Amino acid sequence: MKLAISGKGGVGKTTIAAAITRIFAQTGGTVYAIDADPDACLAASIGIPEDEAAKLKPVVEMRDVIRERSGGGAFYVLNPKVDDFINDYSYKLGNIRFLRMGDPKKGGSECYCRENTFLNALVTSLLLDQNDTVIMDMGAGIEHLSRGTARGVDMMLVVVEPSRNSVNTAKHVERMARELGIPRIGIIANKIRSENEKQFIASSFPGNSILGYIKFSEAIWANAMEPSLAVEVDKEMLAEMKQVCLKISGEVGGKF
Amino acid sequence: MKLAISGKGGVGKTTIAAAITRIFAQTGGTVYAIDADPDACLAASIGIPEDEAAKLKPVVEMRDVIRERSGGGAFYVLNPKVDDFINDYSYKLGNIRFLRMGDPKKGGSECYCRENTFLNALVTSLLLDQNDTVIMDMGAGIEHLSRGTARGVDMMLVVVEPSRNSVNTAKHVERMARELGIPRIGIIANKIRSENEKQFIASSFPGNSILGYIKFSEAIWANAMEPSLAVEVDKEMLAEMKQVCLKISGEVGGKF
Repeated sequence: MKLAISGKGGVGKTTIAAAITRIFAQTGGTVYAIDADPDACLAASIGIPEDEAAKLKPVVEMRDVIRERSGGGAFYVLNPKVDDFINDYSYKLGNIRFLRMGDPKKGGSECYCRENTFLNALVTSLLLDQNDTVIMDMGAGIEHLSRGTARGVDMMLVVVEPSRNSVNTAKHVERMARELGIPRIGIIANKIRSENEKQFIASSFPGNSILGYIKFSEAIWANAMEPSLAVEVDKEMLAEMKQVCLKISGEVGGKF
Repeated sequence: MKLAISGKGGVGKTTIAAAITRIFAQTGGTVYAIDADPDACLAASIGIPEDEAAKLKPVVEMRDVIRERSGGGAFYVLNPKVDDFINDYSYKLGNIRFLRMGDPKKGGSECYCRENTFLNALVTSLLLDQNDTVIMDMGAGIEHLSRGTARGVDMMLVVVEPSRNSVNTAKHVERMARELGIPRIGIIANKIRSENEKQFIASSFPGNSILGYIKFSEAIWANAMEPSLAVEVDKEMLAEMKQVCLKISGEVGGKF
């Protein structure tokens, strides 16, 4: 099962991605958690120290090695069971394999087009066991969609909060994900504080596209200044996210 | 005075940009408010109807016209007093001229490199009167910095909220802005709810780099579901931002 998580900046993509990573990891399969945001913070959210994550080779550096092995051909099936690439470029935490797209760059040096293009090729070529999951935490906004970075995933998860701007972004994401040929799109409503806010989201999307409503968490907000794990500070949020993961699994046909 | 506003997704860049736009507009000069985020929402925040903003030609389309006029040369000084480009590509609201970088694209079509490159050339070539201001609301995160879109501004404003992730992003932004040669960098602390949160920001940056602490606004949060002007719902926030604008003006040497 290959998933991508997107949405407007600040809606809680990384917290949601971290929760999904940990929940699917508990089912026993390998979870490949990929930080696809140049402004990265997924590592810390799943419990990997920031300095360890910073030492990790970014996946874009895999490109030349893969080209050599495949004889320069465009087609390569990456099988983590027999190929050592994934081990070399990932940080292992239980059955989570954390990977990151690219390094911070120098101001004015270049864009992240190369990283995005390679990440798309990598995720597309990744051959998974039935019980394995890929979760890509995308950058804020819509450029990764105009680039097509997540083309090839089974489902695009769009996180929204009760704000008009985040709903507008989600509608752009939905349209562009459809244009990319992504077969399933699901909305996760986050930071819900009232029935009024829930109704706002409910009235903005067709009911069957909403995978769940996650309550606003004072604990996670208060914890944002600490380096610790956001998802560990709120068990209720994790329980709500388990229901969302069940639905995702049901839709995509994964094992849970 | 040319300013750019950046920071992690969700910290309140657009609300801050809208407040600065309205405050400088009151001083009498022309304010060029530029939405440099493909996932745009500055227009609505300064009071321009979303459908009007969507009809506006994006500045990237100016490129070929300017090339023709300048005979294909790289150097062109754009003087809004005598050139009609800015009128053709901007929405006028009092003495605010709103411009936007680019159009939404099709999923998987292309990146926004071309838009970013042209926007940099445009802002650099813009010849301002002493009383005029350019405010660019940048996309979330750091890619606009690795691209150098805002190279040439007088000051980079970095918005942070009391979270470790937004402070980490701000430190990347500071480093990259310095690498771009931007002469002044200022931090605006937003969404402050307690003395503890204020101290967290204060301890994260040198004191003289912090331009102000903006209190968390329940009114703005509650208003996020409405299409109305965020900055009009909270007069206290506007008053706090006036003090920030005074400091910006003092540092850059603009008129206020």
